[in-house]
Amino acid sequence: MAPWEEKAKTARDYRDQTLSKVDPPLKPLPDPLPLSSQGLAKEYLTEREYELTQNYDAIELLELLRTKKLTSEELTRAFLRRAALAQYAVNCVTELMWDEAIERAKYLDSLAEPIGPLHGLPISVKEHHGMNGKTNHASYVAWIGQGSDPNPINDILYDAGCVYYVRTTGPQTLMHLECNNNVYGRTVNPWNRDLTSGGSSGGEGALVGFRGSVWGLGGDIGGSVRAPASNCGIYGFKPTTKRIPLKGMKHVMDGKESILATFGPLTQSRETLNLFMKTILDTKPWRTDPSLTVKPWTPDTETVNKKLKIAIEWDDGVVRPHPPATRAMQIVADACKAAGHEVVDWVPYDHAKGWDLVSALYFPDGGEAAYEPLNASGEPVLPLTKFIIDEQPHVKKRDMHELWKLCSERDAYREAYAAQWSKTATDPKTGEGEVDVIICPTTPGCAPLHETARYWPYTSHWNLLDYPGAVFPVTFVDTEKDVYEPGYKPMNDQDKYNYDIYAPEKFVGAPVNLTVIGRRGMDEKVMAALEVIEKAMGRK
Amino acid sequence: MAPWEEKAKTARDYRDQTLSKVDPPLKPLPDPLPLSSQGLAKEYLTEREYELTQNYDAIELLELLRTKKLTSEELTRAFLRRAALAQYAVNCVTELMWDEAIERAKYLDSLAEPIGPLHGLPISVKEHHGMNGKTNHASYVAWIGQGSDPNPINDILYDAGCVYYVRTTGPQTLMHLECNNNVYGRTVNPWNRDLTSGGSSGGEGALVGFRGSVWGLGGDIGGSVRAPASNCGIYGFKPTTKRIPLKGMKHVMDGKESILATFGPLTQSRETLNLFMKTILDTKPWRTDPSLTVKPWTPDTETVNKKLKIAIEWDDGVVRPHPPATRAMQIVADACKAAGHEVVDWVPYDHAKGWDLVSALYFPDGGEAAYEPLNASGEPVLPLTKFIIDEQPHVKKRDMHELWKLCSERDAYREAYAAQWSKTATDPKTGEGEVDVIICPTTPGCAPLHETARYWPYTSHWNLLDYPGAVFPVTFVDTEKDVYEPGYKPMNDQDKYNYDIYAPEKFVGAPVNLTVIGRRGMDEKVMAALEVIEKAMGRK
Repeated sequence: MAPWEEKAKTARDYRDQTLSKVDPPLKPLPDPLPLSSQGLAKEYLTEREYELTQNYDAIELLELLRTKKLTSEELTRAFLRRAALAQYAVNCVTELMWDEAIERAKYLDSLAEPIGPLHGLPISVKEHHGMNGKTNHASYVAWIGQGSDPNPINDILYDAGCVYYVRTTGPQTLMHLECNNNVYGRTVNPWNRDLTSGGSSGGEGALVGFRGSVWGLGGDIGGSVRAPASNCGIYGFKPTTKRIPLKGMKHVMDGKESILATFGPLTQSRETLNLFMKTILDTKPWRTDPSLTVKPWTPDTETVNKKLKIAIEWDDGVVRPHPPATRAMQIVADACKAAGHEVVDWVPYDHAKGWDLVSALYFPDGGEAAYEPLNASGEPVLPLTKFIIDEQPHVKKRDMHELWKLCSERDAYREAYAAQWSKTATDPKTGEGEVDVIICPTTPGCAPLHETARYWPYTSHWNLLDYPGAVFPVTFVDTEKDVYEPGYKPMNDQDKYNYDIYAPEKFVGAPVNLTVIGRRGMDEKVMAALEVIEKAMGRK
Repeated sequence: MAPWEEKAKTARDYRDQTLSKVDPPLKPLPDPLPLSSQGLAKEYLTEREYELTQNYDAIELLELLRTKKLTSEELTRAFLRRAALAQYAVNCVTELMWDEAIERAKYLDSLAEPIGPLHGLPISVKEHHGMNGKTNHASYVAWIGQGSDPNPINDILYDAGCVYYVRTTGPQTLMHLECNNNVYGRTVNPWNRDLTSGGSSGGEGALVGFRGSVWGLGGDIGGSVRAPASNCGIYGFKPTTKRIPLKGMKHVMDGKESILATFGPLTQSRETLNLFMKTILDTKPWRTDPSLTVKPWTPDTETVNKKLKIAIEWDDGVVRPHPPATRAMQIVADACKAAGHEVVDWVPYDHAKGWDLVSALYFPDGGEAAYEPLNASGEPVLPLTKFIIDEQPHVKKRDMHELWKLCSERDAYREAYAAQWSKTATDPKTGEGEVDVIICPTTPGCAPLHETARYWPYTSHWNLLDYPGAVFPVTFVDTEKDVYEPGYKPMNDQDKYNYDIYAPEKFVGAPVNLTVIGRRGMDEKVMAALEVIEKAMGRK
């Protein structure tokens, strides 16, 4: 065993040790595991555990906790056991916090008054984000055993009364839209294990998609909240950067400003996304992190009550999404039209150029910093790491003046895109009559087959533009309906790649989600529009 | 004559040609010119011109225009002549826009309805910002004759009905807190020609201080709005960056993000600062410039009606300001206390470290880009250029990883400073009872003697922190009162430098202004606090 392998094993051993605490233990899982993991919980959990974890979103659980119909301890034990089951089913856990979660839950149960709006709610967190008193390696073998930095969002949610009970996986370098690393191996999709859960917050996606959590915490610089949320059939939100704190995650490129990440929630419901934003912004986080925008969470009561102008991005002009995504867009477009909203086609503006820019902006040092911990341990470089660094023609090491030039090009592109959006207005000066939100495929399809998530721009484009996006479930793959029209001719090599990897029978059971995108800074508007859209779809 | 001198002369000749349009011409000025230029206007302008330019702020002039007690043409002609007089007195003009300003004013006068909130108001702009259809050299000889880029703020104010009539000087590289360059020479202070008008918006400061303008446009990355406003006895505002558009200025380091500039107004009144912000933000500039914060101008009605906790920064822990600034702070502190506000001492947090950081962040390429146009023309490098680039120990050429490290240190410092501010709260969690605003010296004294403005941190510190600041006039130098206490011992070399350059008799007639500083993003609060403070001082 190579030294890096031995080191990696220590992290797995530690994980297994934390899982051994599960009480009562889970009975052994079937071998081989079924394609879909969705049936396992009913069989392996108690009826009450199943009910608590299966039937409610965070809002409903908080109401049960508040009205004392449920203790935090009972709820936490249920989610601990379901998270452990998720680990055995889809390999999404890096650490189960059995003892400390139960202790925390008991403490919260012992209090006469709730300490905050999340009193007693179990919450899962990506390992990448660190956690007080815990180690933090960000999926790098070299960093196994290192300590965590303080993470303000963790602290805010803790002070709001949450119970941390499980930490979850991410991919090597955190720069894959899948979830595989040399420490824990691959996290798979809870709906179909041949498919990826997505990444980088792929552990959270899989866990929440398995209903092993109602409230997960991820991060997003290229799709890392949205892709897993979408792949796993749940809700996710990537706010505009600088709305909520980002500190604490273990990161190779601290201080890089060319393109910014943001944390974001992966949840079972839309309203949980709102609660996430409200809970954080109610604490005025800009008082401690002065890089943040000074702006409370202000629900957009105008958008929620008006007829919207909704643009559908049928494709991005480069790669046609797989048929399930196209069908999902049609479902939503029809529902919105039927509810009286105006539905138009989005005209994408040179998304190919967008990818040239954002891929370069991710690694202005040519990837040196991202490679440094890989080289330090000698762990193998995974194919999707090579893909995103070595195989991107615009990733290169730049000097200061080249960086400034690149940032200027980025800004020019952002302005051109803003102009594209403004052009949709009937009054270009005031913006009256302009598109309210875009509905687009989250990724170029539904959850991809392992190792095939190689077209980022459906997600990364909105990082480049820093536009907020909310992911929501629409439907599931229908192997009968979800076929390309006969004779479809791919537009280019990238489209051909995407076309070639598709065959409906490979995606059995996969959820199909979409994303609502708003202009930069219009986070509340995106959430209001999602409410309007879901109501048009007949949801609450 | 060296080639660069010949080229520089072409710009001066052009300026003189534009000044030759003045009609009726101004009679010759005294030689030598008086120490203070403040008496000239009464003598050289007509009674009506003097009345219009001397007695009103922008708000009052707009009311006279709106009620048709005044035409834009008459007003514009008055300011054109006073601006020309300012040029002869203090050398602040790069171009007088005689014909086109009058044509514009006549056009606006011909309309039945105002086109916007600034209908008919003459406005001055720093040459550095460019102007549609005009050349733009940013005080670099090499760039003389180059065209202007579009400037969104210019366009917004134009669409709001303003009349552009004059463009003004800046220093070499725009990185001096004085105003001297090889194209036009030195701009001097209208209150005392031995003193600098400040920089980089030194032409605006001098012009508005001479009352050759009621509304000037400058920019600020190290004090370039605040120092001239303060030196020249007027109002100025540096908003938080990204509140208003910055595009259009001619700049050597486009794309640099390590420290950001912002435009800002230099005016005759506090309410003009508010009108500036409101006029720009009412147009939702984030629709065209998506880098901007999505946040309308929202007057802070809470702050304006409450008892404030005001901290006085008597010194920054490094350099004691000159006695006039100390006395000015005492005047304001006494007035605020008398009006029932709480006045406390500000405890500065390692401002020396702040300067190490911000000086490095200005030139992460070691100043190469700033030197490039100097080298291109061969024009002499001025002493204050050498001072700010070559003589700063932390200015050096950095590679990408060094830049990221520096930006991380900047962010850590910003957080430490935020913590310092939060510590002033009686309830650290909510911020209740915390300091509302700081009142501080704008610079380490009043307007400095030429070539002595070599201590930036009183202004640049708030650029490093990106805190908004509003400059307001307090008093004038009193040669009797404004002396150091006997036996004052300088704290260090920088303090000794500042101490040694002071002697009250050198600063006869100089105005003494101060700055109100708020936390990042609290622009409206700063303006509200300034209103409270001025009312406490017995002003309207």
